[in-house]
Amino acid sequence: MITSVQNNKVKEWNKLKKRKEREKRNVFFIEGMHLVQEALHSKWNLQEVIIQDGIELPEWLQQHTVTYVSDHVFKTISDTKAPQGIAAVVEMKPAILDKSLHKLVLLDAVQDPGNLGTIIRTADAAGFDGVILGEGTVDLYNEKVIRATQGSLFHLPIIQSNLLKEINELQKNDVQVWAATLEGAESYQQLPVPEKVALVVGNEGAGIDATIVQQADKKVHIPIFGQAESLNVSVATGILLYYIAMK
Amino acid sequence: MITSVQNNKVKEWNKLKKRKEREKRNVFFIEGMHLVQEALHSKWNLQEVIIQDGIELPEWLQQHTVTYVSDHVFKTISDTKAPQGIAAVVEMKPAILDKSLHKLVLLDAVQDPGNLGTIIRTADAAGFDGVILGEGTVDLYNEKVIRATQGSLFHLPIIQSNLLKEINELQKNDVQVWAATLEGAESYQQLPVPEKVALVVGNEGAGIDATIVQQADKKVHIPIFGQAESLNVSVATGILLYYIAMK
Repeated sequence: MITSVQNNKVKEWNKLKKRKEREKRNVFFIEGMHLVQEALHSKWNLQEVIIQDGIELPEWLQQHTVTYVSDHVFKTISDTKAPQGIAAVVEMKPAILDKSLHKLVLLDAVQDPGNLGTIIRTADAAGFDGVILGEGTVDLYNEKVIRATQGSLFHLPIIQSNLLKEINELQKNDVQVWAATLEGAESYQQLPVPEKVALVVGNEGAGIDATIVQQADKKVHIPIFGQAESLNVSVATGILLYYIAMK
Repeated sequence: MITSVQNNKVKEWNKLKKRKEREKRNVFFIEGMHLVQEALHSKWNLQEVIIQDGIELPEWLQQHTVTYVSDHVFKTISDTKAPQGIAAVVEMKPAILDKSLHKLVLLDAVQDPGNLGTIIRTADAAGFDGVILGEGTVDLYNEKVIRATQGSLFHLPIIQSNLLKEINELQKNDVQVWAATLEGAESYQQLPVPEKVALVVGNEGAGIDATIVQQADKKVHIPIFGQAESLNVSVATGILLYYIAMK
């Protein structure tokens, strides 16, 4: 059992809080029973499973090699207020968005980790085929993003790419691209849902970059009936994804 | 100008981070240009406006008495990473939900401040008439809740009450009560939207209390098409509020 925070392994785990280190080693850190279980069930490779002393090993982990650590050590590696005593180092897996994908979400510079994670969770729930993260979007492997996905990051392909390039390719494959924006946009219920559709949503403050909006096939907005100026981006995305999914 | 954190006013402002103190004095603390402006425009009483030294007083505040504080003092009273140098102490205002209200949201023990604030913002955007916070729901005047409302807490009546009592009264006034739940529920698109409707949503983990679900007229759920187990509560609420609003 590891009882010292000076232990090299502990130092390596803590370094994974930094994006640069995650990308260098091609792994990321997750914690909590549900996330570790989702990763394993979705056949992601757990490089290391870390269990706090006294926590009972769940049955689905009994074939797995685990590293035990003291309460104190677990607290130092945990990012949560009430740690569940289970964590893992997970290997990144290159995602592939193939040509058969019909429903996609594209994110332009979404910056709040909670929003990104929630949008991925919603895309999963709505049965979407994949998510494309444009430049300027918060890192997928940020701990808060992972927590907000509730495990959905293990369920559907998520790639990081240049949105203009991807939109261009999608359009060649008969995918209709919708940009969620306010100016010159149609109310979503006016838009017939095509077989293949990609929804682009944008930054919390600035919305979608103008060049990307121009490239889209349709501009879509959600009407505001009260005095609020706008909707939260993950709520707006949820409304549009379910509008598409329920058609 | 106040330059010492030992100043009594500074101590009083800092005490407002605690619910007990807010309730005792019947005021709450807000910060940021947009929130202060929304409070003023919505005719809430600003007991005190606090401006950081060097920040230009916006035109709409020039009739108002303001208290200037040093950078250092502002940092100690601010809850944000990048303070905008403007804050206010706002008087609470008793909200009234009268009998003419047709569209309401009821929250049973929603605990995440971001979720509560986002739901209030969405209820405002969707043109709902009011929000009822049941027991066990996070405090409306929590700083994170206020920030997530983006000012919508100043736009529509929000009361704290016992949900069973309120549901009983709503039903007497021909309001149809919908409970968002998984078991024995109909998919939302199956439900015709009545003229008067109150949507109840529940706790992030446990959902709505069983007694409340039983009391509801309809049980409603959002279908899950992928592998996610559920939706985030503010996303789910957004989908249902807009389903109701767009009918």
